[in-house]
Amino acid sequence: MATKHFYPTIDGLVDQALLGTAASHPGLALLRSEKVLYAKNHPRSQVSVICGGGSGHEPAHAGFVGEGMLAAAVCGDVFASPSAKQVQKGCMAVPSDNGYILIVTNYTGDMLHFGLACEKMKAEGYKVGVVKAADDVAVGRKNGGMVGRRGLAGTIILDKILGSMASADCSYDEILGLGTAVGKSLVTISAGLDHCHVPGRTTAYGAIETNTLEIGMGIHNEPGVRTVTPIPPVDDLIAELLNYLIDPNDADRAYVPFEKTDEVVVLMNNLGGLSTLELRAATQATISGLKKHHGITPSRVVAGTFMTSLNAPAFAITLLNVTYAARESSVEAATILKYFDAPTDALSWPKTASYSSEAAVEELKNGEAEKTFAQDITVEPATLERKLRKACENIIEIEPKLTEWDTEMGDGDCGETIKAGAVALLALLDSGLAKTGSILRVVDAMVDITEDHMGGTLGAVFGIFFAALMSALVAAASTSSSAPIEQVLATATAEALASLRTHTPAKEGDRTVMDVMIPFSAAFEGGNVDKAAKAAKEAAEGTMKLMPKLGRATYVGGLAEKKLLPPDPGAWGVHELIQGLAD
Amino acid sequence: MATKHFYPTIDGLVDQALLGTAASHPGLALLRSEKVLYAKNHPRSQVSVICGGGSGHEPAHAGFVGEGMLAAAVCGDVFASPSAKQVQKGCMAVPSDNGYILIVTNYTGDMLHFGLACEKMKAEGYKVGVVKAADDVAVGRKNGGMVGRRGLAGTIILDKILGSMASADCSYDEILGLGTAVGKSLVTISAGLDHCHVPGRTTAYGAIETNTLEIGMGIHNEPGVRTVTPIPPVDDLIAELLNYLIDPNDADRAYVPFEKTDEVVVLMNNLGGLSTLELRAATQATISGLKKHHGITPSRVVAGTFMTSLNAPAFAITLLNVTYAARESSVEAATILKYFDAPTDALSWPKTASYSSEAAVEELKNGEAEKTFAQDITVEPATLERKLRKACENIIEIEPKLTEWDTEMGDGDCGETIKAGAVALLALLDSGLAKTGSILRVVDAMVDITEDHMGGTLGAVFGIFFAALMSALVAAASTSSSAPIEQVLATATAEALASLRTHTPAKEGDRTVMDVMIPFSAAFEGGNVDKAAKAAKEAAEGTMKLMPKLGRATYVGGLAEKKLLPPDPGAWGVHELIQGLAD
Repeated sequence: MATKHFYPTIDGLVDQALLGTAASHPGLALLRSEKVLYAKNHPRSQVSVICGGGSGHEPAHAGFVGEGMLAAAVCGDVFASPSAKQVQKGCMAVPSDNGYILIVTNYTGDMLHFGLACEKMKAEGYKVGVVKAADDVAVGRKNGGMVGRRGLAGTIILDKILGSMASADCSYDEILGLGTAVGKSLVTISAGLDHCHVPGRTTAYGAIETNTLEIGMGIHNEPGVRTVTPIPPVDDLIAELLNYLIDPNDADRAYVPFEKTDEVVVLMNNLGGLSTLELRAATQATISGLKKHHGITPSRVVAGTFMTSLNAPAFAITLLNVTYAARESSVEAATILKYFDAPTDALSWPKTASYSSEAAVEELKNGEAEKTFAQDITVEPATLERKLRKACENIIEIEPKLTEWDTEMGDGDCGETIKAGAVALLALLDSGLAKTGSILRVVDAMVDITEDHMGGTLGAVFGIFFAALMSALVAAASTSSSAPIEQVLATATAEALASLRTHTPAKEGDRTVMDVMIPFSAAFEGGNVDKAAKAAKEAAEGTMKLMPKLGRATYVGGLAEKKLLPPDPGAWGVHELIQGLAD
Repeated sequence: MATKHFYPTIDGLVDQALLGTAASHPGLALLRSEKVLYAKNHPRSQVSVICGGGSGHEPAHAGFVGEGMLAAAVCGDVFASPSAKQVQKGCMAVPSDNGYILIVTNYTGDMLHFGLACEKMKAEGYKVGVVKAADDVAVGRKNGGMVGRRGLAGTIILDKILGSMASADCSYDEILGLGTAVGKSLVTISAGLDHCHVPGRTTAYGAIETNTLEIGMGIHNEPGVRTVTPIPPVDDLIAELLNYLIDPNDADRAYVPFEKTDEVVVLMNNLGGLSTLELRAATQATISGLKKHHGITPSRVVAGTFMTSLNAPAFAITLLNVTYAARESSVEAATILKYFDAPTDALSWPKTASYSSEAAVEELKNGEAEKTFAQDITVEPATLERKLRKACENIIEIEPKLTEWDTEMGDGDCGETIKAGAVALLALLDSGLAKTGSILRVVDAMVDITEDHMGGTLGAVFGIFFAALMSALVAAASTSSSAPIEQVLATATAEALASLRTHTPAKEGDRTVMDVMIPFSAAFEGGNVDKAAKAAKEAAEGTMKLMPKLGRATYVGGLAEKKLLPPDPGAWGVHELIQGLAD
């Protein structure tokens, strides 16, 4: 159980959170003394739809105030109902000429305090009604007895649909009618890895055991249906949760009937402490489970943080059977979905543009045509073939040394990585890569080799260099320059190195491949290959005097005491490549 | 450290999460093999703004794909950069005639793989540029050395502004230019209570000590600037965090200059495991701290879950100095804010309607005029006074008994609660409540007494009853019925009881006040007070034979063995009240 907090107690916490929420949305105003967050410009002509309850369930309900959702949220302290006076003041903050609808979660305190506000306002001549949120299926009929089911994340679907209706200028009776039907068509069940913890309170209710999860846990740490040990595979868990929600043969539940062809909304709720990564994966598992076990393809899926239990690492699945709500209300299913989809500027309702189709998932088509180059740079094919083979052989021969040096200074894979590139190039040469003498074709192949056969940091560095070299050579080929091939290569090398340096901070002296590439490129400027190769050799030997500044080698202890280190294996590999090409 | 997960390892987790995300938004499509989530209908005429990086930071970046934000998100595995090939396929999923801008977080792997994709695409003739996200200030200039600052939640502000520009048909050069300026104008620092935990991995990096927090923690559990023990008051913590972000005298930082009059955007990021309640309170603390210590009133505040470190209980503050970005780009500050404010249908960007003013906070004005009733129901004042006083005295006298019974069966406060109501009524009688003989005035006062002096479940139940009674009596007063007063009261009582029963599930036999109120109302039907009072007395005595079904009394052990319990104290109190009134 996560018992650490930035706030040591809940004293003043709700007040501060409401101020922070009001500051996050220009359309909101806070009636601070009453903990009422309301929409500043709520039109009197619209029915005021209001929700509320204890805090600790953020973003519920303050995060759902705004055009298209709630007119106001009335907040109690953590896990404590607001008073009837607060509820009344909340209503008065968003005056309506056409009535007030209170969405009330089915807990004793909320039902009585909102109920009291409702009756007081009725006594004063207002039109006020209550829509009860009681979507929990953890409590079966037998144990639920007369109190009935608790209000969970299904409440937020009521906030959305009823608020949307109010914005669409529906009447009080229409909203109350459909609200009651939607309320009857909601089911929710949770699965929790652990309890939440209230800042400053004891941990008397304890943590859930390491290898156990709890099904049906409430949003105030109320015990659930059962605990499961060990934690089951997610697909099994979801299958069980869906049974609690849907199974028509569960005599103690089956609160809402579901048919395969029903329009069903799925709401996945993070109870506060679950990673978004896991919530989103569980969303997919729920979609799959609904299809597999119940033949249901949901019409809408929303996933996010709606009604939390502070920091509880848990999620809940809510289903709204839109088709059933339509039957219970004589409002068409398509109309109910239209209310669900309508835009809102409430802070915490996720954006869901109007739905038109199922999730689109593509698999990548393979197969690319072999590249040809309109303008090419060519050399004598046999020479090209010989130089490339020599470079590869140099690298394969020196590989054991590179590996030895890298084992001392790094993670030991440098030699193998460079060798893998050389082996791949030899294989392509065997397939006739150099047979046309095209430099562009070879450089293009090198880009793929670095990515497909080398990988890691070194592969990426070489890949960027060869890709940028390719750009420079393609540009050079398209000009009608008569410069000798060595000069073209030298200029392109300098340009490619400049591009590479925009992607890596490594510079000369950092004991990386750049310690050879930079002096090589500089010496190559006039197109003299031998001079450049000599500079590369000296630079590779010079890495023996350099301390590492980047990457894993920086963590090797006792380096400062050593006068001479092995050469940098990457830099040495580049030097061997260059010697082969210059040969 | 929260090490429990629904998913035992990360195998397949990112794939499932992306499927779940795609299913949650009708405008998204998934190129599954490449972990690319993209906007289905991205117009070719717009620049394609693309972001990505390792997973484990959800909703970043898949949650920010959509009209007005990213064209595509390219996702690696948990905490691992995607490959250059994935990045290229991501670009190809959202083809553009006007170029591609890659927003890249400044980590070695991301910079190299996105850099490689960039160079490869350039070699193929595409226009591609990189905007680097490097907003972390935890790493100072000395230690940051050449790698520089890491990309944190400021990345999402880049996603928003650059994506917004693309939707507004800005050119490649405009987006790259402003993107670079915005990148230079961002600062972020985090405060963490604990590390995150990757499903299936070891906990080798360990938990942060119970009474310690870490400042500047990275989003992959990288160590921060310093740990603080004990956990400081939030306001002190925020003051320190703001200094890291802003202090112009911090020679090792001061990455972005801030002036009091600058337009500043505040983004509060939940790293995944913090309760929304605490995040929102910390948002307010940040707003206050900015004003108090730096004289800055933010132009925009957004708070939510943007770029997580899986389930880390931590938050980060990001500031964008819009004025500075304007200076660095020659785009006006108002224009930059316009891009920031523009609507988007990306799933996880919070809704923020266009800003027009500061957060509105009201304090409630006190003082209501004394109520008068157009039509009243009156009786002889002296009789009314006498009956009410007698009822109060009855209750005060029996209070010790009620307390005794409730101590045995409940939490012991029932007697005191009822007595408090009686005492308050006596005080009002002393002030002349009954002097006009107005029944409405007395019932109206009873509603306030139940709320202001009683409270709790019992106060709410009485409050609802009296408020509903008020409604019924007001309605009766407005008719010109000539029915005797007893009959009017009897009818109103029945109506009020019916209303009360819509707010509480309690029925006869549940051992509550309803055990007296229901038979009393039934017996009162014809307007015979004595008969009704007798029924109330018998019913109160009858509660001795009832087992509790609701509330705390249900938890008292060994009840089933007892033949006779004390009477229900609430029910008995009602009976005493009725006897007083009937007297």
